[in-house]
Amino acid sequence: MSCIEFWFEFGSTYSYPAALRIERVVRDAGLAIIWRPFLLGPIFKEQGWNDSPFNLYPAKGCYMWRDLARICADLEIPLRQPTTFPRNSLLAARLTCWFQTESWIPEFIRQVYLANFGRDRDIADAKEILSILEGLNQPLDILSVAESPEAKAKLRAQTEQARALGIFGAPSFVVEQELFWGNDRLEAAVAWAQRKGKSAV
Amino acid sequence: MSCIEFWFEFGSTYSYPAALRIERVVRDAGLAIIWRPFLLGPIFKEQGWNDSPFNLYPAKGCYMWRDLARICADLEIPLRQPTTFPRNSLLAARLTCWFQTESWIPEFIRQVYLANFGRDRDIADAKEILSILEGLNQPLDILSVAESPEAKAKLRAQTEQARALGIFGAPSFVVEQELFWGNDRLEAAVAWAQRKGKSAV
Repeated sequence: MSCIEFWFEFGSTYSYPAALRIERVVRDAGLAIIWRPFLLGPIFKEQGWNDSPFNLYPAKGCYMWRDLARICADLEIPLRQPTTFPRNSLLAARLTCWFQTESWIPEFIRQVYLANFGRDRDIADAKEILSILEGLNQPLDILSVAESPEAKAKLRAQTEQARALGIFGAPSFVVEQELFWGNDRLEAAVAWAQRKGKSAV
Repeated sequence: MSCIEFWFEFGSTYSYPAALRIERVVRDAGLAIIWRPFLLGPIFKEQGWNDSPFNLYPAKGCYMWRDLARICADLEIPLRQPTTFPRNSLLAARLTCWFQTESWIPEFIRQVYLANFGRDRDIADAKEILSILEGLNQPLDILSVAESPEAKAKLRAQTEQARALGIFGAPSFVVEQELFWGNDRLEAAVAWAQRKGKSAV
């Protein structure tokens, strides 16, 4: 089965609708998803940004919130503009990165996004992450795993891999090294993977 | 009939596929196009950029050329990466702005884009613009109109209007103050205009 790598950052606005809709889109197309959390901070820093470009460039930011509201309305998913943007996603990203192939991870990812962008909850707060884990019947002590040197190193390496793939924003989709950027490119990535799958048969 | 304002810059890469496909998409939807050339330079300058962000941020630029190649291949339109990017669009923009409601303008616009991005011709050169006008059987002396104080003032005012609408990039589509940014938002702008049209009936 052909795969789509889904590269996302929990603080990224357009990653929110992508995370909520990707499973249905990709499964309907007969493809598989590889979940790949990473951090945008170090990648933005390299471009000279110490904040989200949506904060640095107000006209762009103003448009983005309006555009996101239209997209969420179309998808019928809630949107509440976070009082802090972007939220620190380090804890959630480390945890997700460490457990990224576990079966409960896709729903955990969606719950973190819904907390941040649907309910304006502070996902940087361990209590918020614990409450999501509890809702998924996961043992709460796995949170400490996210703070282990190994989990930190794994997320650093994965962010490094994102950069090596040419990723400069989120969400991004990768199909055998071919890069697609933005929630609005999901369908193009799916079509690309399906074409690749056919040519491999 | 509901209208879509199409705001474009001749040096902008993603404006190229948008300019080539917009007429069919918009007419098929029973809508009308208002052609609105403007200059991105002054708007970028305000954001602190003295060049295209695709040049300032190499990872983004590298991705854009690849993405544009895929889009042009899907649309079956030629793409030859311009040896100079972005090209100075002042002459073409002034001319288009002055004559923007004339019936030959849509084809002129497409020909300028095809010259720049399909054949790597220097659209900053008056000779190139003259040859396009000639192909459209337009009197060549209209080029001097583009250099009149009135034509210069009109383009300046239109660029100012773009900024006032919240436009920060090209192509952009505007439906009754509602802003859509990017070639990939054309369909969303069309759907918006159709909904507006229905609710007005």
